[in-house]
Amino acid sequence: MARARQHMASLGVDCLLLSLGADLPWLTGYEAMALERLTMLVLAADGDATLVVPRLEAPRVAEDPAAFSVLPWSEGADPVEIVATLVGARRNLAISDRAWSIFLLRLQAALPGGSWQPSSVVTAPLRAVKDAAEIAALRRASAAADRVAVQLLAGDIPLIGRTEASVSADIGRRLLAEGHQRVNFAIVGSGPNSASPHHEPGARVIGPGEAVVCDFGGALDGYCSDITRTVVTGPPTAELVDLYGVLEQAQAAAVRAAVVGTPCEEVDGAARRPIVAAGYGDAFIHRTGHGIGLEEHEDPYLVAGNSEPLVAGHAFSVEPGIYLAGRFGARIEDIVVATPSGPEALNRADHGLHVVDAT
Amino acid sequence: MARARQHMASLGVDCLLLSLGADLPWLTGYEAMALERLTMLVLAADGDATLVVPRLEAPRVAEDPAAFSVLPWSEGADPVEIVATLVGARRNLAISDRAWSIFLLRLQAALPGGSWQPSSVVTAPLRAVKDAAEIAALRRASAAADRVAVQLLAGDIPLIGRTEASVSADIGRRLLAEGHQRVNFAIVGSGPNSASPHHEPGARVIGPGEAVVCDFGGALDGYCSDITRTVVTGPPTAELVDLYGVLEQAQAAAVRAAVVGTPCEEVDGAARRPIVAAGYGDAFIHRTGHGIGLEEHEDPYLVAGNSEPLVAGHAFSVEPGIYLAGRFGARIEDIVVATPSGPEALNRADHGLHVVDAT
Repeated sequence: MARARQHMASLGVDCLLLSLGADLPWLTGYEAMALERLTMLVLAADGDATLVVPRLEAPRVAEDPAAFSVLPWSEGADPVEIVATLVGARRNLAISDRAWSIFLLRLQAALPGGSWQPSSVVTAPLRAVKDAAEIAALRRASAAADRVAVQLLAGDIPLIGRTEASVSADIGRRLLAEGHQRVNFAIVGSGPNSASPHHEPGARVIGPGEAVVCDFGGALDGYCSDITRTVVTGPPTAELVDLYGVLEQAQAAAVRAAVVGTPCEEVDGAARRPIVAAGYGDAFIHRTGHGIGLEEHEDPYLVAGNSEPLVAGHAFSVEPGIYLAGRFGARIEDIVVATPSGPEALNRADHGLHVVDAT
Repeated sequence: MARARQHMASLGVDCLLLSLGADLPWLTGYEAMALERLTMLVLAADGDATLVVPRLEAPRVAEDPAAFSVLPWSEGADPVEIVATLVGARRNLAISDRAWSIFLLRLQAALPGGSWQPSSVVTAPLRAVKDAAEIAALRRASAAADRVAVQLLAGDIPLIGRTEASVSADIGRRLLAEGHQRVNFAIVGSGPNSASPHHEPGARVIGPGEAVVCDFGGALDGYCSDITRTVVTGPPTAELVDLYGVLEQAQAAAVRAAVVGTPCEEVDGAARRPIVAAGYGDAFIHRTGHGIGLEEHEDPYLVAGNSEPLVAGHAFSVEPGIYLAGRFGARIEDIVVATPSGPEALNRADHGLHVVDAT
């Protein structure tokens, strides 16, 4: 909180207003409920920190009087008015990126003349650089996800004849069994759906000889995992073997490029160049990666246009993909940390194209 | 969509900007992902509807060209600029209540002079009145939750010796087994935690002779269930029996009061009066209920100050509770629909205080 206040002062932000998202638990250990009753930490650069919380949720808060006070509001009271009173005359305000718009609109009406920014302006640079304890937590989460990936690669997770939704639920259960407290997502895209990067696993039954993209992660002790492996349910076509080989090279090149001081966009470039050279440039339709920590996606983003240099402690995904619309696709993803001695991949599950559950 | 446009016109709203929350799936069948890449439907009162969606998520969209067109944006493009171009000169704008503040702030900068409201101003009154198909869906969801409640009341869900978190996970699995596609929450508050209405189930091990508040729900075919039953793990004290008897009367009185034409706050009053009369007024620290449908909590809210009259098709929870801080509490909750022939409770699981898992 001291570091946040210091950074607020240097940016001229008078007051941080934190609701949904990871900034609030990062600073207080308390996570707001995503409901219509407002929870908001009012953190003044020059004053106190007060957590405004619905009275019926106040018993959930683990109080930390040295850091912040708790101000419960009762049904019928107007929490926006309470927050506005705490803000007082301050007008350079930053609100949680994920706070609901309905609350921002009400706060703007209650605090006329305010100048507003997203709270990530203050918090993202601080949260992006992980300390040793955070990297250890990310390592544990990645290791737990790896154990599920190893089961997938070994053919221990049946695929042929099951729906994508059923395999997704199975992967979710395995993430929990391996130590995650929460499943964030488990994408399973088979056959033509493997060409849809954010495919919603559905009723499609997986057949033989299909590419299956499995991209899954959860949270373990608050920190997120995120891994993708693509398998094939029978002998792959020459085209898939070729495409996958290009992808494997591209992913490895990007991991190697992720050294301290390299601009984020250069890591994206390192993944993109071999894919473009092989003629698949138009089929790599997303950035190479995203930061990861308390949230699945956070700074830094490995994307064209982001010239920010990597620093030691940055943790991010490296996940190029090649997608042939309507036919098939593949993606390989690991979480990587930039360290003084070079990039450290936290995921270790094998990268080769595994034939699993062959008939 | 025609009804939404009509209501927009009557309110003077030029353009609806829909992102996270249920308004978007309600109108298009498509649910935005809660990620940092913007998805937004731009629905003009006097023009077209266009779904701006990240290119990598576009394959998820089930297109409906008669209703809206799809405009994918590629990595590196600025979706806020694309939305602003579609909005054009329109300035009376309404944005999803749950849209992330970071996007509202960017849109406000891109659309100077805009007058902003939450989209619920347009959609909430329409969504609050359920048609026959929606009531049937709510009935199915409630029946599925009832089956889990019956298991709880019958003692089929072990309690003593298990942690709250473990019982919560068990209830979640049962909600899925009974037909829900998604678990929204499963509060399990035991002993002193039963006095914390939104308790986060944790490591506390449930003991004998304790009140256990179980409040759980999920989504089945898009529509939500939500039920609370309080059980006791051994012979109850006279104090709990007395308190529970008051609560049971209060809940039944509120259900009886929920007739078409009655102001919402009167239903709250009907629950509150017997609780106040019994001396527990200060221990009923929340409103009596909330609307339910595609979202767990939506209009109408049964709360003091809401003089809106109930109309046929309103669906809502009736859930008074009495909480003795640090000691114990209880809550009873059913979903109820206001119909021309009177209130219909969708939950039928027994209301009596059940002694379960007694040693």
